[in-house]
Amino acid sequence: MKQSLGAKPLALPSPVWVIGTYSSDGQPNIMVVSWGGICCTAPPCVAISLRKTRLTYTNIIESNAFTLNVPSHQYLVETDYLGMVSGIDADKFSVTGLTAVRSEMVNAPYVKEFPLVMECRVLQSIDIGSHTQFIGQIVDVKSDDAVLGDNGLPVAEKVNPIISSACDRAYYALGECLQQAYSPGMSLLN
Amino acid sequence: MKQSLGAKPLALPSPVWVIGTYSSDGQPNIMVVSWGGICCTAPPCVAISLRKTRLTYTNIIESNAFTLNVPSHQYLVETDYLGMVSGIDADKFSVTGLTAVRSEMVNAPYVKEFPLVMECRVLQSIDIGSHTQFIGQIVDVKSDDAVLGDNGLPVAEKVNPIISSACDRAYYALGECLQQAYSPGMSLLN
Repeated sequence: MKQSLGAKPLALPSPVWVIGTYSSDGQPNIMVVSWGGICCTAPPCVAISLRKTRLTYTNIIESNAFTLNVPSHQYLVETDYLGMVSGIDADKFSVTGLTAVRSEMVNAPYVKEFPLVMECRVLQSIDIGSHTQFIGQIVDVKSDDAVLGDNGLPVAEKVNPIISSACDRAYYALGECLQQAYSPGMSLLN
Repeated sequence: MKQSLGAKPLALPSPVWVIGTYSSDGQPNIMVVSWGGICCTAPPCVAISLRKTRLTYTNIIESNAFTLNVPSHQYLVETDYLGMVSGIDADKFSVTGLTAVRSEMVNAPYVKEFPLVMECRVLQSIDIGSHTQFIGQIVDVKSDDAVLGDNGLPVAEKVNPIISSACDRAYYALGECLQQAYSPGMSLLN
C-alpha cells in the first residue's frame, strides 16, 4: 500500500561532491553539494545545483569553471564541515587542512587529498527555482594512482565515496558490489 | 600522485532509477537511467538525461510527464533488464512481471512493486550533446508504508536503493549509515 507524501525532493541516492572555485581575487573556496549528477556522455558533463546566495554561485558566474571532487569517506568530518560554513566567513581550506591545487585546464582549484577530481568548464546555467543548475563539461579527470584498477579506471570501492539520502539527511558508505551492469538481466532476455 | 585520465564522465556515485512513461497510444513503458539527480528544492525537481533514440524520450516529449521509481536491490534482475531492451521491441512490464499503475497527478505510469516513486511534470528540456536532460517537477511522492520511518519519511536502508558506478559499470548496495549530516563537521566549527 502506497501513501502520498506530497511534493518533496526524496529521490535516492544522492552524491556528496565537493565543488572547488576561485573568487575573482583568486581565493580558493570549496563547498559540498548533493543536488547533482552526470548529465551527458558526449561531451562528458555533470550538473550541480546551487542557491544564488552561495559564494560558489558567484565564483562560478565569474570564472565559468569549477572542479568536482569526490571525497573518500575518511574525509567525512572535513566534507560535512564544508556544508556548514560559507566561504564568505571562513577560509575552508585553512580550517580543514585540505590543500588547494590549481587545475591544469580550467580556472578552479581541486582538492589534493581527494582521490578523484574533475575539471569542469560551464556550458549552461539554468534557473529552476530555489536552485540554479550549472552544466559543466568535464575537460579532464584526475585520479590518485592508489584508486586505479587494472583497466586504468578508478575502482569504486577504493574511491570509497560518500552517499547521501535526501530522506533522512544522513551519510552512507558504499555497500557491497552486487553485479556488473548488463549481467543479471540476461536471464529475462528471450 | 594524480594521473590525468582525460575527459570522461566518472563522477561517483550514480543513482539507478526507473523511468515510467506512456506512449501516445497509452502503452506503459519503463527504462533505467543513471544519468540524473535532484536539481532543485523549491519547487522540488529531479533531472534525468536520455538519448533521443529512446522510446522514453519520445514518450516524454509527447506526454510532458514521467515517473521516477526507486527500485529496491531485490529487483536487480528486473532493473538491469530494463536497460538492455527497448520498449519498441518488448513489453517490459509483461516480461518483468512488474505492474504499471496510472499516476494520480501526471500522465505516466509508476511501478507498483518499487517502494518509492515520484510523479513528475516536465518543466524544461535541455539539449546537451549525446543526451537531452529533462527537468521534472516532483508533484507527488508515493511510498510504501513498509519503508516509512517514525517521522513519516522513507528510511534509506528500507528502500534499499541500487547505486551505480560510472567507473566500473557495476551495481552496489547502500552501505552502513556513517553519520547524520551537519554532525561530524561540528568538531571543526570555531
